[in-house]
Amino acid sequence: MTLKLGVIGTGNIGQDHIRRITQALSGAVVVAVSDIDGERAQKVAQGIGGRAEATGQAVIAAKDVDAVLVTSFGATHEEFVLAAIAAGKPVFCEKPLATTAAACKRILDAEVAFGKRLVQVGFMRRYDAGYRMLKALVDQGGIGAPLIAHCAHRNPAVGDDYTTPMAITDTVIHEIDTMRWLLNDEYVSAQVVYPKKTSRASKHLADPQIVMLETATGIRIDVEVFVNALYAYDIQCELVGETGVARLPEPASVLLRSEARLGTELLTDWKKRFIASYDVELQEWINSVASGQISGPSSWDGYAAAVTADACVESQGSGRIIPIKLGAKPALYK
Amino acid sequence: MTLKLGVIGTGNIGQDHIRRITQALSGAVVVAVSDIDGERAQKVAQGIGGRAEATGQAVIAAKDVDAVLVTSFGATHEEFVLAAIAAGKPVFCEKPLATTAAACKRILDAEVAFGKRLVQVGFMRRYDAGYRMLKALVDQGGIGAPLIAHCAHRNPAVGDDYTTPMAITDTVIHEIDTMRWLLNDEYVSAQVVYPKKTSRASKHLADPQIVMLETATGIRIDVEVFVNALYAYDIQCELVGETGVARLPEPASVLLRSEARLGTELLTDWKKRFIASYDVELQEWINSVASGQISGPSSWDGYAAAVTADACVESQGSGRIIPIKLGAKPALYK
Amino acid sequence: MTLKLGVIGTGNIGQDHIRRITQALSGAVVVAVSDIDGERAQKVAQGIGGRAEATGQAVIAAKDVDAVLVTSFGATHEEFVLAAIAAGKPVFCEKPLATTAAACKRILDAEVAFGKRLVQVGFMRRYDAGYRMLKALVDQGGIGAPLIAHCAHRNPAVGDDYTTPMAITDTVIHEIDTMRWLLNDEYVSAQVVYPKKTSRASKHLADPQIVMLETATGIRIDVEVFVNALYAYDIQCELVGETGVARLPEPASVLLRSEARLGTELLTDWKKRFIASYDVELQEWINSVASGQISGPSSWDGYAAAVTADACVESQGSGRIIPIKLGAKPALYK
Amino acid sequence: MTLKLGVIGTGNIGQDHIRRITQALSGAVVVAVSDIDGERAQKVAQGIGGRAEATGQAVIAAKDVDAVLVTSFGATHEEFVLAAIAAGKPVFCEKPLATTAAACKRILDAEVAFGKRLVQVGFMRRYDAGYRMLKALVDQGGIGAPLIAHCAHRNPAVGDDYTTPMAITDTVIHEIDTMRWLLNDEYVSAQVVYPKKTSRASKHLADPQIVMLETATGIRIDVEVFVNALYAYDIQCELVGETGVARLPEPASVLLRSEARLGTELLTDWKKRFIASYDVELQEWINSVASGQISGPSSWDGYAAAVTADACVESQGSGRIIPIKLGAKPALYK
Repeated sequence: MTLKLGVIGTGNIGQDHIRRITQALSGAVVVAVSDIDGERAQKVAQGIGGRAEATGQAVIAAKDVDAVLVTSFGATHEEFVLAAIAAGKPVFCEKPLATTAAACKRILDAEVAFGKRLVQVGFMRRYDAGYRMLKALVDQGGIGAPLIAHCAHRNPAVGDDYTTPMAITDTVIHEIDTMRWLLNDEYVSAQVVYPKKTSRASKHLADPQIVMLETATGIRIDVEVFVNALYAYDIQCELVGETGVARLPEPASVLLRSEARLGTELLTDWKKRFIASYDVELQEWINSVASGQISGPSSWDGYAAAVTADACVESQGSGRIIPIKLGAKPALYK
Repeated sequence: MTLKLGVIGTGNIGQDHIRRITQALSGAVVVAVSDIDGERAQKVAQGIGGRAEATGQAVIAAKDVDAVLVTSFGATHEEFVLAAIAAGKPVFCEKPLATTAAACKRILDAEVAFGKRLVQVGFMRRYDAGYRMLKALVDQGGIGAPLIAHCAHRNPAVGDDYTTPMAITDTVIHEIDTMRWLLNDEYVSAQVVYPKKTSRASKHLADPQIVMLETATGIRIDVEVFVNALYAYDIQCELVGETGVARLPEPASVLLRSEARLGTELLTDWKKRFIASYDVELQEWINSVASGQISGPSSWDGYAAAVTADACVESQGSGRIIPIKLGAKPALYK
Repeated sequence: MTLKLGVIGTGNIGQDHIRRITQALSGAVVVAVSDIDGERAQKVAQGIGGRAEATGQAVIAAKDVDAVLVTSFGATHEEFVLAAIAAGKPVFCEKPLATTAAACKRILDAEVAFGKRLVQVGFMRRYDAGYRMLKALVDQGGIGAPLIAHCAHRNPAVGDDYTTPMAITDTVIHEIDTMRWLLNDEYVSAQVVYPKKTSRASKHLADPQIVMLETATGIRIDVEVFVNALYAYDIQCELVGETGVARLPEPASVLLRSEARLGTELLTDWKKRFIASYDVELQEWINSVASGQISGPSSWDGYAAAVTADACVESQGSGRIIPIKLGAKPALYK
Repeated sequence: MTLKLGVIGTGNIGQDHIRRITQALSGAVVVAVSDIDGERAQKVAQGIGGRAEATGQAVIAAKDVDAVLVTSFGATHEEFVLAAIAAGKPVFCEKPLATTAAACKRILDAEVAFGKRLVQVGFMRRYDAGYRMLKALVDQGGIGAPLIAHCAHRNPAVGDDYTTPMAITDTVIHEIDTMRWLLNDEYVSAQVVYPKKTSRASKHLADPQIVMLETATGIRIDVEVFVNALYAYDIQCELVGETGVARLPEPASVLLRSEARLGTELLTDWKKRFIASYDVELQEWINSVASGQISGPSSWDGYAAAVTADACVESQGSGRIIPIKLGAKPALYK
């Protein structure tokens, strides 16, 4: 049975997911779309033989829409996700779940009140083959109890509109979610310090930064975030455990001997780094909706990421250690 | 528009392709199947809401079948592929295209007579991401003109029914096709020599073997085939060019430091090594059938592989260099 | 012309240096030794055709002794190094230069008063081929201006007498010296935090620890020290610069494919990791004494390491950021 | 006790060994030298406080010369090595032992007649740390019984005077010796084939070549020799055994991430690749002469290499498999 989907927001990421569902994945079709730019919605709808609705609310309300993807502008996420919950329809919401921790909390509360998981947040790294291998190894005890994680998130360059807090909310947000999931643990504090600044960063950007997180069980995570690293888009993650140390695989690449060097090519475009994980993410979400068991990143995960990001941004101002308090985790998410 | 497929042969590989088309890929459904074991065909048909036909010929003839997959026993391939050509229907045939070079030639001639490409052979390595990266690099001149290729094809173990010629027809057959494609060249001779035999091989099996191929432009390829290599399923390919040397990527794997060793896990199950390439292969075939432009491994490729394998097997008996003569390549395949 | 050396302290490291000078290096002989255990000194002296003196002072005073190695117990270093300076004889002193920063300062002052460099401290990592390659690359601008350093110092296990401050004074002391040298910079602050403790550490040992150093130019260095890491003796150093990232080479090792793993052996014995660097260190010292130009790690380096270690140990108690103040660097060391 | 050495031939390699003995190694001094260019011999002698003799024969005959290094022009090796044997003095002879297999045989016979090993041939790869690790692993059974070896010997470029047979006598000669030693086996046949020729080779040079050797126990060795490989000086050796596969370590090198590449620098100068092994080779020879037990590469090894090289060169002309017959190995070399 084919799942009928509505897509709210037909910008880049929305179109990308529509292409994916239509040309690469199995078990779903997009029947309705909407966008703040009505013409764009029309054009996208025509391309897939679907229809454009006037509003996201109309997409959610449509009788033939079984489940919804929210790929609109971040500030609109709360409204659409809450509407989907109200309609009792499964909803896949791109990052961020909402733009404030308070808004995330409202979604969380609504879902808990509904009494069943409906929401999945688009943290696609959990679907990356490398991270999954790493998690499988750790979960099987391959390095003993994890004690420390060393991460690096390096971009070759960013636009001039990229600011110091965006290093957290746009960039480290991925590590914030991924490390909670990898380590099966919650954060209790965050701190950000600034190393020597690269000459390539704009005046209003502290770059690189080092973000330090501590978990409830005492694991310490350091994340180097460096968005003008020039040389490549490079994601590193090393877990230090009681009996061993495991590192995220480098993407497979031809080993070339040429011009007195031995090595591999690095990616410079972040889109290519996790491209396969988007396919896996969405196929698993389609399968989980079809089976009635949503199991991906939850409202709680979206909320925890938002609270943690807030603490990191607060520490950026002061350099101090900021406690992170999530409150009790509702039974729905255990 | 969804492509309607018939599948002839519902054994392991057939069921695997049906699962793929039904659960992982986009743009096709399986509407009819057949099998030498009618009950099995019925069961598989029920699982996908399709129907079982009494014979492969009936599958091919069915009005609602747009294209055919032949995944039956090798000895039946010729009959079904020729029937598909006669019916003017695109046909994807698993390796081998046929069990003799003469049968491959008959298919080739039939397709040429039909005047349009209809046949694709299941050489899935051409769809492996690693081999594709290697080919892209070579085609872009990354190592200059290729001069030599060193390959290894190692299996951890084989059953007792695996014989010396099967090292060619079941194992090296993959390198035979892949290296022609990688190097854009045809073979002119083959030779097989036997190194010291492993104590783990059965009496009737020379293992390891070294297969040496020479191409029309003089490139020399050596393939070590070692099917009782014990330690892993391991596929190696190194191309030596005028300006550099490129090696097939190892599959991505967690880098683990543990028990005084630093390294990665190797696969032991061949099925996992190229599992992703089957998905790519079949999705591209579906897309190419939909667009009317078959572009994967052709009848000519299946024929060239069969002729080359025959030469290798002949050399196994004598150790001598055996010339390979393919005849002129029909314009259809240029 | 052969340099005539006296060696004060004929324990393990003393005997090791004597063997080195006698059997592996060129240009020097050991003519006199002393030890707190007179019999041991006698025995060692006989083995090399030299003589035992009753005291270290006598070794230093001996007319035929051109230069001195101090390889005695740490608490005695100050006395012997000061005596060598008083005698105007070059002295190679094993780590630590002295057991307190104040004692190091007294040596520094004496040498400055003497007006010529006589003292070299045994920080052998500066002579390791890998660190030298790394330094050469950085000095040539291979990664642009360094911004961050990530280090790890992991031992498989330590004895029960190993305590929390020893993680600094016996272990991280190597990174403290090496990173100053690699980065051509001085420290301005230190902080130590404790991740989750491994179950393998004794009650009185916090293990692992993370040491964070900041330099005068703003470079931030994090050192993971983990002395019950179980799996190997493993030294890691990654430098992040404005245009690239460089990592200390792994020791060369056979790449083995065996038992479903691909990888290399790791060392478990720290003595083997830097064994070659001791030879280089001592040969270069012999050459520099012969040429009259001592150029290795200086009293200033020994002093800076001691002050930094003190700051780290202070932070272990409080977790706070401790400023590091070295005072002005005497012209002799520029 | 210091060994007193005479050096016959004070060209590049001779001067290099003299520098080594004088400045880097322990236990020997050079007291006398000679050279076809008497002035050069004088200058070298002055540099080390030794004397120049008029002829190599005078060096050998000198009372104060304990042992001799023959580093003169290849065609003179036989005469000097035979003279050293006649004088009963240990002699270290650089490659080749002599320029013909017949001459090697005369040396062998003279040494056997003398009844004690006096001769060591300068096959320095046996002293390379990487090859030694590889041999230790194989000897310990780390890959089970060896079955196949894949080697590559690649130079960036050669002079115009380098000819096809020199690929054997100057280049593959190293693999010829090293593989006999690594595998503890003797060759029984050799064959050389020519892949497509690189456009960078001169008219009179077939480049690359593939040399195939078979041993008495059936092990097969393939050596790719490619002396215009452009990209680097690159030595590869992979041993395939019954239970695993081991590869010669790459030289340790900084892992650099820069300009969208991850990798290490390769050497382009062959002198740097095995530079450390010359030190080890000569120090072990000095020690072995001092102890009266010559144990390095023997006259038999020099002879076996010469006979094998002859077979390879013969096969270059015909492409045929050439048998290698060494005759019985004298008891002296067992």
